[in-house]
Amino acid sequence: MNKKIESLVDELREKLIAMRRDFHRYPEPAWTEFRTAAQVVRRLEELGYDVSYGEKVIKEEEMMGVPAADELARRQRRAVEQGADAEIVELMTGGKTGVVAVLDTGRPGPTIGLRFDMDANDLEEAKEARHRPFTEGFASLNEGAMHACGHDAHAAIGLGLAEMLKAVQDELHGRIKLVFQPAEEGVRGARAMVTAGVVDDVDYMLGIHVGMGHSPVGRVVCGGEGFLATSKLDVTFNGKPAHAGGEPEAGNNALLAAATAVLNLHAISRHSGGATRINVGTLVAGSGRNVIPARAQMEIETRGATTELNKFVKERAIKIVRSAAAMHDVGTDITAAGAALGGTVSEPLVKKIAKIARSVPGCTTILERGPVSGSEDYTFFMDRVQKQGGQATYLLLGTDLAAGHHNAFFDIDEEVLPLGVKLLGEVVLQLSTAAL
Amino acid sequence: MNKKIESLVDELREKLIAMRRDFHRYPEPAWTEFRTAAQVVRRLEELGYDVSYGEKVIKEEEMMGVPAADELARRQRRAVEQGADAEIVELMTGGKTGVVAVLDTGRPGPTIGLRFDMDANDLEEAKEARHRPFTEGFASLNEGAMHACGHDAHAAIGLGLAEMLKAVQDELHGRIKLVFQPAEEGVRGARAMVTAGVVDDVDYMLGIHVGMGHSPVGRVVCGGEGFLATSKLDVTFNGKPAHAGGEPEAGNNALLAAATAVLNLHAISRHSGGATRINVGTLVAGSGRNVIPARAQMEIETRGATTELNKFVKERAIKIVRSAAAMHDVGTDITAAGAALGGTVSEPLVKKIAKIARSVPGCTTILERGPVSGSEDYTFFMDRVQKQGGQATYLLLGTDLAAGHHNAFFDIDEEVLPLGVKLLGEVVLQLSTAAL
Amino acid sequence: MNKKIESLVDELREKLIAMRRDFHRYPEPAWTEFRTAAQVVRRLEELGYDVSYGEKVIKEEEMMGVPAADELARRQRRAVEQGADAEIVELMTGGKTGVVAVLDTGRPGPTIGLRFDMDANDLEEAKEARHRPFTEGFASLNEGAMHACGHDAHAAIGLGLAEMLKAVQDELHGRIKLVFQPAEEGVRGARAMVTAGVVDDVDYMLGIHVGMGHSPVGRVVCGGEGFLATSKLDVTFNGKPAHAGGEPEAGNNALLAAATAVLNLHAISRHSGGATRINVGTLVAGSGRNVIPARAQMEIETRGATTELNKFVKERAIKIVRSAAAMHDVGTDITAAGAALGGTVSEPLVKKIAKIARSVPGCTTILERGPVSGSEDYTFFMDRVQKQGGQATYLLLGTDLAAGHHNAFFDIDEEVLPLGVKLLGEVVLQLSTAAL
Amino acid sequence: MNKKIESLVDELREKLIAMRRDFHRYPEPAWTEFRTAAQVVRRLEELGYDVSYGEKVIKEEEMMGVPAADELARRQRRAVEQGADAEIVELMTGGKTGVVAVLDTGRPGPTIGLRFDMDANDLEEAKEARHRPFTEGFASLNEGAMHACGHDAHAAIGLGLAEMLKAVQDELHGRIKLVFQPAEEGVRGARAMVTAGVVDDVDYMLGIHVGMGHSPVGRVVCGGEGFLATSKLDVTFNGKPAHAGGEPEAGNNALLAAATAVLNLHAISRHSGGATRINVGTLVAGSGRNVIPARAQMEIETRGATTELNKFVKERAIKIVRSAAAMHDVGTDITAAGAALGGTVSEPLVKKIAKIARSVPGCTTILERGPVSGSEDYTFFMDRVQKQGGQATYLLLGTDLAAGHHNAFFDIDEEVLPLGVKLLGEVVLQLSTAAL
Repeated sequence: MNKKIESLVDELREKLIAMRRDFHRYPEPAWTEFRTAAQVVRRLEELGYDVSYGEKVIKEEEMMGVPAADELARRQRRAVEQGADAEIVELMTGGKTGVVAVLDTGRPGPTIGLRFDMDANDLEEAKEARHRPFTEGFASLNEGAMHACGHDAHAAIGLGLAEMLKAVQDELHGRIKLVFQPAEEGVRGARAMVTAGVVDDVDYMLGIHVGMGHSPVGRVVCGGEGFLATSKLDVTFNGKPAHAGGEPEAGNNALLAAATAVLNLHAISRHSGGATRINVGTLVAGSGRNVIPARAQMEIETRGATTELNKFVKERAIKIVRSAAAMHDVGTDITAAGAALGGTVSEPLVKKIAKIARSVPGCTTILERGPVSGSEDYTFFMDRVQKQGGQATYLLLGTDLAAGHHNAFFDIDEEVLPLGVKLLGEVVLQLSTAAL
Repeated sequence: MNKKIESLVDELREKLIAMRRDFHRYPEPAWTEFRTAAQVVRRLEELGYDVSYGEKVIKEEEMMGVPAADELARRQRRAVEQGADAEIVELMTGGKTGVVAVLDTGRPGPTIGLRFDMDANDLEEAKEARHRPFTEGFASLNEGAMHACGHDAHAAIGLGLAEMLKAVQDELHGRIKLVFQPAEEGVRGARAMVTAGVVDDVDYMLGIHVGMGHSPVGRVVCGGEGFLATSKLDVTFNGKPAHAGGEPEAGNNALLAAATAVLNLHAISRHSGGATRINVGTLVAGSGRNVIPARAQMEIETRGATTELNKFVKERAIKIVRSAAAMHDVGTDITAAGAALGGTVSEPLVKKIAKIARSVPGCTTILERGPVSGSEDYTFFMDRVQKQGGQATYLLLGTDLAAGHHNAFFDIDEEVLPLGVKLLGEVVLQLSTAAL
Repeated sequence: MNKKIESLVDELREKLIAMRRDFHRYPEPAWTEFRTAAQVVRRLEELGYDVSYGEKVIKEEEMMGVPAADELARRQRRAVEQGADAEIVELMTGGKTGVVAVLDTGRPGPTIGLRFDMDANDLEEAKEARHRPFTEGFASLNEGAMHACGHDAHAAIGLGLAEMLKAVQDELHGRIKLVFQPAEEGVRGARAMVTAGVVDDVDYMLGIHVGMGHSPVGRVVCGGEGFLATSKLDVTFNGKPAHAGGEPEAGNNALLAAATAVLNLHAISRHSGGATRINVGTLVAGSGRNVIPARAQMEIETRGATTELNKFVKERAIKIVRSAAAMHDVGTDITAAGAALGGTVSEPLVKKIAKIARSVPGCTTILERGPVSGSEDYTFFMDRVQKQGGQATYLLLGTDLAAGHHNAFFDIDEEVLPLGVKLLGEVVLQLSTAAL
Repeated sequence: MNKKIESLVDELREKLIAMRRDFHRYPEPAWTEFRTAAQVVRRLEELGYDVSYGEKVIKEEEMMGVPAADELARRQRRAVEQGADAEIVELMTGGKTGVVAVLDTGRPGPTIGLRFDMDANDLEEAKEARHRPFTEGFASLNEGAMHACGHDAHAAIGLGLAEMLKAVQDELHGRIKLVFQPAEEGVRGARAMVTAGVVDDVDYMLGIHVGMGHSPVGRVVCGGEGFLATSKLDVTFNGKPAHAGGEPEAGNNALLAAATAVLNLHAISRHSGGATRINVGTLVAGSGRNVIPARAQMEIETRGATTELNKFVKERAIKIVRSAAAMHDVGTDITAAGAALGGTVSEPLVKKIAKIARSVPGCTTILERGPVSGSEDYTFFMDRVQKQGGQATYLLLGTDLAAGHHNAFFDIDEEVLPLGVKLLGEVVLQLSTAAL
């Protein structure tokens, strides 16, 4: 592999860890990554990238599952209090916390895209002696939020890679696009960036995730597989209250509509084409024991082994919800609260990367394929790039975990940071100079 | 009371019994009363009435629960074989077996309508020694049909009354309208006669029923009360079959639609305005264990203590059925198979009749009010006459019963026949000459 | 009427108003009437009554819908801060806020019971110029609580009556029992007092309510009718969570059980014996969109025109809930959260009281019967006394209302206070001296 | 391959076709294969086999989906009329139409079992010019029955093989067991033979099916895969009727139980372990529009990619049915109407057979694996033999089809008959002489 990359990474090591811990200390859940994104912007601008963010890279009407305006405002203020550049944050108002940085070499060559997600989980971080972030003083300072899925590491790797690529800029061809995405949790953010067109010119698209499954640093899966397509729907039934004893017939019972929907949703036909899922995860209905329930709210999700299978379930689900509402003369709102596609990584790209990885010291186990767990909205990037003729894949980087994802004791082996930068640096370098 | 009526009735007695037994021997269920109606027509024409029947008195599109064409044709042929006038029967093709006879006195006076129903039940008559119609040789000759609700007596009383009124014609004023209605069972026939306009000119409307409750001949209720409005609906869901193992998603499951409808129909809100009922009496769905059911058929009925209450239930029921069909992408047909209104008899008319009845020898117990059991489509006649400013009531004539209505051993005390003619004759006479 | 009573009432007028306003200022919802009850105890003891309260008059295991222990404790502390006697309040720990006071004349005669309820509603009182309690400075000082059903007036009348009866003690016979009941709202409290035996020795039982319907002071209904029996049930389904995408089969879905129960509860058969009601007023289920719901909670109520009709619905409801739980292998808890019986007032007592009322100046309109609205757990007292051979009734005392019951602008015409005391004083006097 | 077998098959060719056509002409659906089985018995006895049938090879309590006694009796009489030996048929009374024939060589060696099914479909055969069985005069003479799944060919191959094996008896070792099974359609018959112990001593077990998929004679799949485990359940709910208008509360509504079951059955959780299916294929409920339905009957089937997956669905289904019944206080009967297991063929045996098949002239395409479509109760034989340490497989023999299975125009290329006998003959010969 490239010797410069190899030596630069050693210098970057401490910086990478510091960045990851900084992000870890200030975790920001979906669409509120104001401080994180502002730090990313500042650093990328310092490095000399051409940086876009806010409404230029986020299509507002495609944002899903956005918090209420007052919460967004509160988080925006907090970000500034916690050191974010107020001017940058201002341009991210409304949760438009995506960032895209371009390095144009000016030389002919492919456009290579890399996506890094930045958001934290809605989870209170453990404050116990056995939890290293706590004992070493970089545990979450934000109540109810924690980086328990490694996106702090992803963002740090992204910034480290940005620095690395600048350092080897003269050896690169084509263009490099670094995409920092908000709101991957709940699969809410990718669609708004993809429909804003940020990867429309990309030839090779890469996504990464650290620590999927319990595997040590050095284990690399070059092509994740088994992405479940999914749709998250928020449903509200709006009926009419009435006194349940005095005049029950005057009500339009939102709970009867919801209960009918629940049963029929679960009764959606299995599909001979492959695995599907449906869940009504929550239902909250009614205002009092003696009142015909006028309102019912449900959080639903559908899944499918492919985009088409998920579409089958989703379309039936929507029809069931609307018909259940009509049955009881209640209104209904159905809002998309999240979505991810199915998809398959590009075989030739996987093989290329596997070959490159074998040349990278520290990459001790190279697998072409390995399972992702569940749904990832990176699939929107993958789908867009593949549909326009490009290639895409998703890499899994092993790292020992202190506890599973989304657990209050989650922690990673930070050696994955320099190894990730080294591997991605070499991959970008090789792809940029290979014939398309 | 009128002496002529009193003496004539004694002469009529044997004839009344003979007519009732003739009808009893040839029972014809709803819309197939070809022989019965043809006998009625012939007799009324012999008596000199102005007789209308067939499409003149039955509005085809308002006929409910009509048998299939081939069954109608079979019953029509049988009627001729059993002595009906072929030409008359021909004009009743399609089940238009209603008859209306008018006696116009030429003198000023009110128009008095009387309704008699003629149809039999779908029931095999008992063939046992303890059943008098069997031992005396006038049990049903028509398989699967029996006069088990006394409509044979009603028709006989109607014809006896026709003869009686002719005999006292010179003492009458105004016009008398005798309405012989098919298909009272299942409340299917009245609407088609009423919407044909047959009582649009009636000032006083009378209906009768023999033997409601177990009470002896001589007991007379002048105003029935407690009519339940009802709607009978036939529902079909038409989906799409598919192999349940191989490709279940290709089906549109009519049974899931039906099951959803069943639960939600029964869950229709109770009403603070009074009693309501809903029943899904039958459901037949599917063609085989391993096929997604493509078809489901239900027989439903709704009821209400008033027309409005029934309408409330019926309208919700229809919405539920249609929405359940939409939910599962199946088609649906909803056909009215029967209907009766609620209603209240006219107080002044009840009082008048009670007073007249007290003058009739043999009427030993006179009650102004008494309960009818369930639904009666006579209510369509009552409603129409009352809405145009006339008065209407419904009389219950006591008669000892061998067994309850709709029972294979049902039989009446035939003394109710002459008493009925005597009472109705006197009522008509008095009403026709009283100031409106 | 008794002259002494008449003149004493005029003296009591201001005191009655002051007491009512004091109670109004410190409203305490069900089972937290610590201050109210302590004031009642102190006053009754001052008057020389034999007073019992706490566990002597409340059977703990029959208390329904009791708030959580910490809330009870908070309210108990607040009562003391707001002037209640700490020692008295201590004996009411756990919400045992019922009080019974006995005046034993020593002379032979009947035992006469009177029930007054004391609890407030969970409602924020209006703070607007058009609301007299606000402008005159006696609006609620307790956040989220308000006397919006007149129980402040009931308690004041009870205390005023206590004083009055003491003043005419020498003219009375038998024993007088004044019962101050907590938790009438939600029909939660009566059962615990009745089963504690507090009216087991009562011959004549009286209950009152002010301002039912909009009628002026002076209108008196001597026998309320139309009590709906009711059962309030809290239902919890306890299942097992599982990841809805990864391993849905491992879950036991509490929401499916609840939805099945909801539909089938509403589908409980109508009853030919009279009006019934069922409502699932609230349903809260699940913890997250992608988790099989492990828990679902419902607040249900059943009603019936009679105790038997309510029992029919309640028993079917319990069977449905248990079977729905079994169907989905989830546990279930069903807790009684409230109950009232149906019932009919005692005809002879009603007539007696009507006669007495006619002699009371100010009682301008005396009706023997009038409708109560909905359910009242006073029916437990009525039922117990009638079952042991006594007589019972329920009086409605007219008073102009500023707004309907349970409305934030509810207010009464306080002239009902002296009139109520006068009427009840005279009734007790007459009943105590009449032959049993 | 063995030369004797090769030459003998040519002699057998006409006989095989005649036997298949004879069976085709007299098709007998499940448990009524009296004539077919009697012919099989007679022929096997003629050949000198040790033949068992009736209760010796069919365990009565494990028979599923047996027709009513009167239908069995009618079919039994017809079989005799159509030429069956009355004495043999007598021993098959009750539908015990299984036959087992043993050829014991007396020489050490394995026991080889082969299973042939014999039953026809409930289907009216096409009577049109383009249907060869019709034009060549061997179409079904039994109304409503047709060999539309090739079991006529299976039985003929079994008898042909029996003759062939006798001819090469001296070259064989061990024991050969020919099992002729009734009632494969609806997967009703295998369990009763397996539990009777007929393959408890078998080392190698073979099953065959002709014409799965559209492939020509000569194509052979040596190991079928994809067996779906399945359970067929007949469910009856027994409630109590009541007049829906007059006294609805007196009923126990079997249709409400059934509708609740239908929805919840379809809502059984998907399983992460693989494909499952549930279907309520038919539902028939109720006796009349105005009667609370007292009876409801459902035909259900569950499926799973493995025996365990099917068990998961079946057990949930049974719990749902029982709970739905309990919910509405109705009784329930659940009867097993059919069952098949999942399963996997034995890899070493498949390889052995594939090798043998490659030596057989006419076997032009040899595949080790190929998909079976749906469920086969042969899996009971396979499972039993494998569980006791033996090996089992299932062969698919290509043959051009005139129309798909279970189609009124189904017909085969009869050249599969001699090829089948040749292949099975050689396989048995080789297996019998190979070291176990």
